Amino acid sequence: MTDSVGVVATQRAVLTQHGPLVLASGAELGHVEIAYETYGTLSPARDNAVFVCHALTGDAHAAGWHEGATRPGWWDNLIGPGKALDTDRFFVVSANLLGGCSGTTGPQSVDPATGRAHGPDFPALDMADLVAVHRGLLDHLGIERLHAAVGGSLGGMQVLEWALTEPDRIGRAVLVAASSRLTPENIAFSSVARAAILEDPDFHGGRYAEHGTTPRHGLKIARMMAHITYVSPESLEAKFGHRRATVGHAKRLDADFEVEAYLQHQGEAFLRRFDALSYLHLTRPMDYFDPFGAHPDVVPSTRFGLISFDSDWRFPTPHSLRIRDRLAARGAAVEHVEITSPWGHDSFLLEPPGYHDEVRRHLG
Amino acid sequence: MTDSVGVVATQRAVLTQHGPLVLASGAELGHVEIAYETYGTLSPARDNAVFVCHALTGDAHAAGWHEGATRPGWWDNLIGPGKALDTDRFFVVSANLLGGCSGTTGPQSVDPATGRAHGPDFPALDMADLVAVHRGLLDHLGIERLHAAVGGSLGGMQVLEWALTEPDRIGRAVLVAASSRLTPENIAFSSVARAAILEDPDFHGGRYAEHGTTPRHGLKIARMMAHITYVSPESLEAKFGHRRATVGHAKRLDADFEVEAYLQHQGEAFLRRFDALSYLHLTRPMDYFDPFGAHPDVVPSTRFGLISFDSDWRFPTPHSLRIRDRLAARGAAVEHVEITSPWGHDSFLLEPPGYHDEVRRHLG
Repeated sequence: MTDSVGVVATQRAVLTQHGPLVLASGAELGHVEIAYETYGTLSPARDNAVFVCHALTGDAHAAGWHEGATRPGWWDNLIGPGKALDTDRFFVVSANLLGGCSGTTGPQSVDPATGRAHGPDFPALDMADLVAVHRGLLDHLGIERLHAAVGGSLGGMQVLEWALTEPDRIGRAVLVAASSRLTPENIAFSSVARAAILEDPDFHGGRYAEHGTTPRHGLKIARMMAHITYVSPESLEAKFGHRRATVGHAKRLDADFEVEAYLQHQGEAFLRRFDALSYLHLTRPMDYFDPFGAHPDVVPSTRFGLISFDSDWRFPTPHSLRIRDRLAARGAAVEHVEITSPWGHDSFLLEPPGYHDEVRRHLG
Repeated sequence: MTDSVGVVATQRAVLTQHGPLVLASGAELGHVEIAYETYGTLSPARDNAVFVCHALTGDAHAAGWHEGATRPGWWDNLIGPGKALDTDRFFVVSANLLGGCSGTTGPQSVDPATGRAHGPDFPALDMADLVAVHRGLLDHLGIERLHAAVGGSLGGMQVLEWALTEPDRIGRAVLVAASSRLTPENIAFSSVARAAILEDPDFHGGRYAEHGTTPRHGLKIARMMAHITYVSPESLEAKFGHRRATVGHAKRLDADFEVEAYLQHQGEAFLRRFDALSYLHLTRPMDYFDPFGAHPDVVPSTRFGLISFDSDWRFPTPHSLRIRDRLAARGAAVEHVEITSPWGHDSFLLEPPGYHDEVRRHLG
């Protein structure tokens, strides 16, 4: 583990000691706790911090190993001593999202004002709200300015929102497989996923915890479908082809082909780690996201590095080109590179040739 | 309505008067009834029949108008006097599929042997079984040989199976947006749709009718998801963009964008016209379909015309090229044309420029 940050633990901080968090909608959260991890050492000048923003179902544990764990953090291939996000140079901060279910305040967190979980009363979130909590964590850590912010997919969208609303605070922004406005096809897939949850009889208007159940049917279907959009037709072909898992047996209606068993596994595993209300609350800010429309006059001083993958059909390269063109039109410093990769949208979590070198280069 | 076949009615025939239908699996159906329509006039030589095979959720009503109906049959733009499938020349036969829910025997049909609906005891079907019933209808109608068989999507797959197993009976085959072997991505989407139904608590192991309910949650989600794959990203963009249906109101978790309202409508409408068990039984034969593997030695004498659409990502052009190459390798007469169309897989139901001319040309 010479290139690992080693054993790490998730830390927590309360961000509402001086008042409630006021959301973009005007709603307030009186108590917001954040789960985060840090890797590397903050420099005496406090100028080497890099903020990592996670994607839809990520968490604060981006790198290293939790005590006794069998797998490292979700971006461990990118973050560590000598890696692209080099913890010998940078102080890396990674936080779980507001609305999530991995330590930061979300729908299943107990609201101290009522003594009960927020449940369906948890307010709808805006991309700006996710960023507001990151900002609160930086204040808590006493970090004035970030050397960089980095994120893939929804993570890249947070970075874009942040750089457009607080440009002086972010030196460099690295957006991987991100979007500045979803297509109707993007929204359609998320909408069907949400409908699967919202219309599951076990959802109970979001009060499923009170009913001692979960909308597991809907959440599993949502994840199985979304998973198809995260990979590429060619990677599925290479991995599964037309092979059945039960060759020689009678044809059946339930899972039989290898790709079906794989999706079943993905769906079941997701139920053990994710909450249905969090899924609703974290997919929705992506649909509404339109930062160039919302902040028409901002001239960002951040330097932007955009990376997309040629086999990504969830947020294909035109999404990154749109960001590039909008930023360039405002005079911002921006570069874009398309990386060749067979793995679709999930490429941002993997190591297709050239990708990590680009991240390293953009980080300066 | 000068180019319409006018008012038509669905007819019925019993195909098991001389014995049960033996399926590819060895299972038997003692009573099989078929719903069909015909347009045009059978020539004295009985040599001008064209068989139309419908896609997953189609029915026997391909052309003309049912008494009092507000919409014509699903392929009325193609079939009629002077149209590509010219009823002044051809006698067109269109039948509902075995396993369906629009008149031909399917899971919800009453089994005369038991007096109850088949329900979950309905046997798993093979593409060959769908074709066997078409064949039975031709026998019933006293038609020895088809001038042509025509079908889109699953319809084209039936035509391919038929031409490979009874080549002398089919003069010409027109396969539109079809496939000879699904990709794992194709199977994945169908598998999630089936899981949505199979795992819906209201499915009751397929005995939902006995429980006085239907797995409407799962069937609706299945249809909404499948619908996304039938259209193209560009057609959704042109139709809906990023527009909300409820501009000015607060952000919400349930349907808000126009594309979401559209999908909700598609899902709800489907519940009124389709059965969940039929959905399972008619999607599955596509997954298993591999006619070139199943019939390795057949040299088809049929002339094949293949048509695909450049924006179809459900069965994109490589599916048609695979059919072309396999047929050509066996010495069959085969041509393929890719049509430019913005509408994705559903193009086979529409009239992108050049498409109907190609069908007309292939029909000779």
